[in-house]
Amino acid sequence: MYDVERIRADFPILSRQVNGKPLVYLDNGASAQKPRAVIDAVTRGYAEEYANVHRGLHYLSNLATEKYESVRGTVARFLGAADEDEIVLNTGSTIGINMVAYSWAMPRMQAGDEIVLSVMEHHANIVPWHFLRERQGVVLKWVDIADDGSLDPQAVIDAIGPRTKLVAITHCSNVLGTVVDVKAITRAAHDRGVPVLVDGSQGAVHMPVNVADIGCDFYAITGHKLYGPSASGAIYIRRERMAEMRPFLGGGDMIKEVTRDRVIYNDPPMKFEAGTPGIVQTIGLGVALDYLMALGMENVAAHEAALRDYAMERLKGLNWLTLQGTAPGKAAIFSFTLQGAAHAHDISTILDKKGVAVRAGHHCAGPLMERLGVTATCRASFGLYNTREEVDALVEALELAHELFG
Amino acid sequence: MYDVERIRADFPILSRQVNGKPLVYLDNGASAQKPRAVIDAVTRGYAEEYANVHRGLHYLSNLATEKYESVRGTVARFLGAADEDEIVLNTGSTIGINMVAYSWAMPRMQAGDEIVLSVMEHHANIVPWHFLRERQGVVLKWVDIADDGSLDPQAVIDAIGPRTKLVAITHCSNVLGTVVDVKAITRAAHDRGVPVLVDGSQGAVHMPVNVADIGCDFYAITGHKLYGPSASGAIYIRRERMAEMRPFLGGGDMIKEVTRDRVIYNDPPMKFEAGTPGIVQTIGLGVALDYLMALGMENVAAHEAALRDYAMERLKGLNWLTLQGTAPGKAAIFSFTLQGAAHAHDISTILDKKGVAVRAGHHCAGPLMERLGVTATCRASFGLYNTREEVDALVEALELAHELFG
Repeated sequence: MYDVERIRADFPILSRQVNGKPLVYLDNGASAQKPRAVIDAVTRGYAEEYANVHRGLHYLSNLATEKYESVRGTVARFLGAADEDEIVLNTGSTIGINMVAYSWAMPRMQAGDEIVLSVMEHHANIVPWHFLRERQGVVLKWVDIADDGSLDPQAVIDAIGPRTKLVAITHCSNVLGTVVDVKAITRAAHDRGVPVLVDGSQGAVHMPVNVADIGCDFYAITGHKLYGPSASGAIYIRRERMAEMRPFLGGGDMIKEVTRDRVIYNDPPMKFEAGTPGIVQTIGLGVALDYLMALGMENVAAHEAALRDYAMERLKGLNWLTLQGTAPGKAAIFSFTLQGAAHAHDISTILDKKGVAVRAGHHCAGPLMERLGVTATCRASFGLYNTREEVDALVEALELAHELFG
Repeated sequence: MYDVERIRADFPILSRQVNGKPLVYLDNGASAQKPRAVIDAVTRGYAEEYANVHRGLHYLSNLATEKYESVRGTVARFLGAADEDEIVLNTGSTIGINMVAYSWAMPRMQAGDEIVLSVMEHHANIVPWHFLRERQGVVLKWVDIADDGSLDPQAVIDAIGPRTKLVAITHCSNVLGTVVDVKAITRAAHDRGVPVLVDGSQGAVHMPVNVADIGCDFYAITGHKLYGPSASGAIYIRRERMAEMRPFLGGGDMIKEVTRDRVIYNDPPMKFEAGTPGIVQTIGLGVALDYLMALGMENVAAHEAALRDYAMERLKGLNWLTLQGTAPGKAAIFSFTLQGAAHAHDISTILDKKGVAVRAGHHCAGPLMERLGVTATCRASFGLYNTREEVDALVEALELAHELFG
């Protein structure tokens, strides 16, 4: 039984007020709040159990190493990866995707080679590929969405040509909530010999993920959206792809031996983890993923689906509001503009006065804004602790904004 | 008045026991412990004030943004940089130095171009340059140290030739404690038109740093060694060098505009900060640097110099112990091996039984180990909270190890 009130009690910040009103936190797409268990793990990590990891050989270092390294297995379980050596721990999906661009794509792509991506990608899954376009003439092939925000997997598959070297696609749009059939895309891409990178920054937050089932080559996640600490994260990389990658960051831990004349690199995944890692925040990420697995991601998804349905019904009732993204099965992420009304920034400022935290802007999705014909939207993005009452609070605040600006 | 007992009370972990003995933490070179003020800032950051930064437009996001962005100025003050826009916030010196390698050095270095570095660099200031050697034929020119571990600045200057494009040098050896005259090196390098990168991972921890006085082009620091959270850090980059750099990581925040066909990058320093940053740990880094500035880095340095002198005297009294590194004015970092005795790892294990935490291994300094003719050393590295009594505890534990292994 998914008891949202009991769950809310796990998140200290949710009981605070903002501008004299109870906080209604609907900015989960940007970053999620942290349960007490995560915060306590971080506090304990610094106050009682801190040392650098690896090669310490003293008690605290061994303790920190054991806790840190155990997270690799936790991430593997969370993502359904068979082998924890296919998990690289990092500080988020931005660096994860950039690592793939620098270490895997850059040395193997020539001018004219193509990367297929959708128009609703986040900049983290666009700009690293623009680098390859600017620096070595790689071609970006954009796949359009339907007007409801859905993405036909066949359109992605049809975009794959003889020069396509990678499909880079989001699992779930951070603006529209659209869920992409990455499994169908991966199967067809693999039939054509093309690897697939899935940006799981949002996908892993809202639904159960199984990379073995999807079959993808890369799956990037970001800890701070997964109710974990900031600057935590990981990327799943299929073993064969990891073997093809040259190192990305150079430094400690990723080497076996360094002399003046040569370097012998460490075995994967350590080869891709340079320097002192985010020790305490990674330990916190492990606690966050354990928290999610204890709730059950299918239960989280069911809770959020009910919220989505209720929010969709209420928002559709506002005839002065334009919803961007109504694809079937979408995640509980709602982008909208107010017809004939003020800029999205003004809307969100009004909402904030009522304690309702939403985001306004381009949501790091420039090509999608262009596609939608807007410069900015408001976005209300729900998480596992949100409630129907918070949907009502959002609608009430929107009605106020409509009165003021309409 | 520097009251070390009052300072120790600020660090919760220092009152704990390890293996039934009071913790004697002498592994500061690997990572430093955190004062209560830092831990509390992190806890509060998650429990009461958390949201993603930039473009949030709601109360919590504005609050987090204000706190996060204020750290840029704190770092600038700590490093003596005139302009906070010369500070890039990141997750540590490894990524800072790699950014310089990828964004500044890589596009402007040809086969046969040279990078001058010392044999006592840390792998974080070696491997990124080895990448350039492996990938584009850049030549690494190594400058030797004297037998006492000191580095003659003239030797570095003499190594600069017409093909030299960069001097990459540590401010303070993480193994020997040797302090390098980076100011003299920078002045001479600039006379020859060669930029200088200083690896301040250790230097900034043990002495006052003023990048304006040093005159260097790049100065990398790492927060977790500066009594701040793990995965926090920054790099100072002189304005002219920053203007020469192409972006490193692509994603949110580092762009002004992204379309299908092009990217307009943000102005520096934001151009070099992609994606959601380490929000809470960066806020914690600011608190750590404020803590250090309140103590006064000259007072920290004086305290550690007294500890160094005392430790040097006591360790030199052990005629079965070989000290690596006795350069005048060195930091309180001691590497040693036991003559005719066991591997460094066994020594550190014995020390651990007495609660004394030291590190054993190659200390991410392969070329230096080769130069010293050892495969590993033990390293006792002191910090601002260490005491004379802890020097005595180290010596007592070493005597036990000598008895057991001698």
